[in-house]
Amino acid sequence: MSIKDFRFDGEKKLNLKNEPTGAGDMKLRKKELVAKTAQNIAEAAQLQEMLYAERREGLVIAIQARDAAGKDSLIKHVFCGLNPAALKITSFKTPTKTELAHDYLWRINAALPERGVIGVFNRSHYEDVIAVRVHHYEKTYNFPDRCMTEDFFLRRYMQLTGWEDYLYENGYRVVKLFLNVSKETQSKRFIDRMVRDDKHWKLSTNDMKERALWEEYDKAFEDAINFTGTPQSPWYVVPADNKWYTRYIVSEILLQTLKDMDPHFPELDSAEAAKIPAIMEQLEQERAAKEMK
Amino acid sequence: MSIKDFRFDGEKKLNLKNEPTGAGDMKLRKKELVAKTAQNIAEAAQLQEMLYAERREGLVIAIQARDAAGKDSLIKHVFCGLNPAALKITSFKTPTKTELAHDYLWRINAALPERGVIGVFNRSHYEDVIAVRVHHYEKTYNFPDRCMTEDFFLRRYMQLTGWEDYLYENGYRVVKLFLNVSKETQSKRFIDRMVRDDKHWKLSTNDMKERALWEEYDKAFEDAINFTGTPQSPWYVVPADNKWYTRYIVSEILLQTLKDMDPHFPELDSAEAAKIPAIMEQLEQERAAKEMK
Repeated sequence: MSIKDFRFDGEKKLNLKNEPTGAGDMKLRKKELVAKTAQNIAEAAQLQEMLYAERREGLVIAIQARDAAGKDSLIKHVFCGLNPAALKITSFKTPTKTELAHDYLWRINAALPERGVIGVFNRSHYEDVIAVRVHHYEKTYNFPDRCMTEDFFLRRYMQLTGWEDYLYENGYRVVKLFLNVSKETQSKRFIDRMVRDDKHWKLSTNDMKERALWEEYDKAFEDAINFTGTPQSPWYVVPADNKWYTRYIVSEILLQTLKDMDPHFPELDSAEAAKIPAIMEQLEQERAAKEMK
Repeated sequence: MSIKDFRFDGEKKLNLKNEPTGAGDMKLRKKELVAKTAQNIAEAAQLQEMLYAERREGLVIAIQARDAAGKDSLIKHVFCGLNPAALKITSFKTPTKTELAHDYLWRINAALPERGVIGVFNRSHYEDVIAVRVHHYEKTYNFPDRCMTEDFFLRRYMQLTGWEDYLYENGYRVVKLFLNVSKETQSKRFIDRMVRDDKHWKLSTNDMKERALWEEYDKAFEDAINFTGTPQSPWYVVPADNKWYTRYIVSEILLQTLKDMDPHFPELDSAEAAKIPAIMEQLEQERAAKEMK
């Protein structure tokens, strides 16, 4: 098993029917992989510290999925091990009137982390080619006629790739995760939300309407991933039926991405370095004076 | 005289040496053109009302120029005739630390007007290929090595065109103005700032350093305009030695742009229209009851 198996960067074509949603044989190695997950997150946290110190490159991790695929839980369990001061989580909800009055990347840009910080998007700019496409919300957005072309979503895929290329050229990386849950697992988790007191808050009976559009979403996810996966801004299609396995794979992706970014602690500025001996001496004298008393 | 003479949208190549900075023969028509300016602004305000009512398309007017070319004065005198509720003026200063920690379009995106509103940028995203290029500030911005290529500014021109194309496809137009002032006129205006009490506040002796780089700025403006002028996001190179003439030309550009956008008052929603007779009757009854008293 390698994270390459889950990677879509333009080399191979995604057909969701052929992708695993569960851990499969890896269930036999569960104990080992859960331990490896913790180890990966700890190692990622060390690289995050360097990324933050260096403030040179930013990272955006965009998470897309169907309802109950485990986005919130993934964020809670994988990113909890990182320094929250250098982490920016943004949840994108149904767009507000103000957001809809702008271009669709406007609210995404506003949420961009500073370079040196890891941004996690719980839903993202991809909603605008997934939910919008399935429901054709774009028809209600009051666009000028010239915008409403036959190839509306094709152009959006190109716009998204263009935007991510621009970010790459300006010091950011964008990594996109699709949590691939099966219809059966979604059903189980919906039932949990209906019967468990500690899960009621996640219940939205409206989610059943989206579930009924399963094939339409399949097509929208496939097209989005096939058109916008690139070597510098890849997609990963992550099995999401077993949460421990999802976390393991995402911890591997996070760690590998940070290793590729290769952050370093910045060297001491030479002007600052020159002042060190005098400061060292002053602090030493203070200490000695205190001991004399 | 037509505004086409000043337009650069990729058809012809700009060489600033050949462009007028003053009104020339048009000075003979000053009285007429000043009157026409007021008329243009009034007509533009009517179109702005429809643009605002329709909330379909947004307009960005980016103003770039050397010091003392008259940016502030132009904004004060041309845009004063528009409804300020549907107008958003943003002045871009030296980038802050927070702005520099993001990509260079981050602060520009944040200032984008809603669709239906006219945004005026006093300096703009073009500073990042003009002042930055002349001083090579990019070398101090702590970018990852992959960003610091030989073709850094060429890529920026492409990024800017890509961004403006994206906006066009999403319901915005971007029009760019370069106020073309002569070295002699800048000198006169600098002197004004030094000797006049009501102009002191505009004085920055630092501007003399920029003046010394006249040719470098010429080259940076020419390249920016030649590489990023497109049919949908054109540049206009506007003579700036005679303020009344600058205002006249910009009023023509504003009016023509709004005419091209072709805004309309939205039609009454049919559900709303159906309620009109009942409301009319209720208001009529209220009036009649009051008269009976």
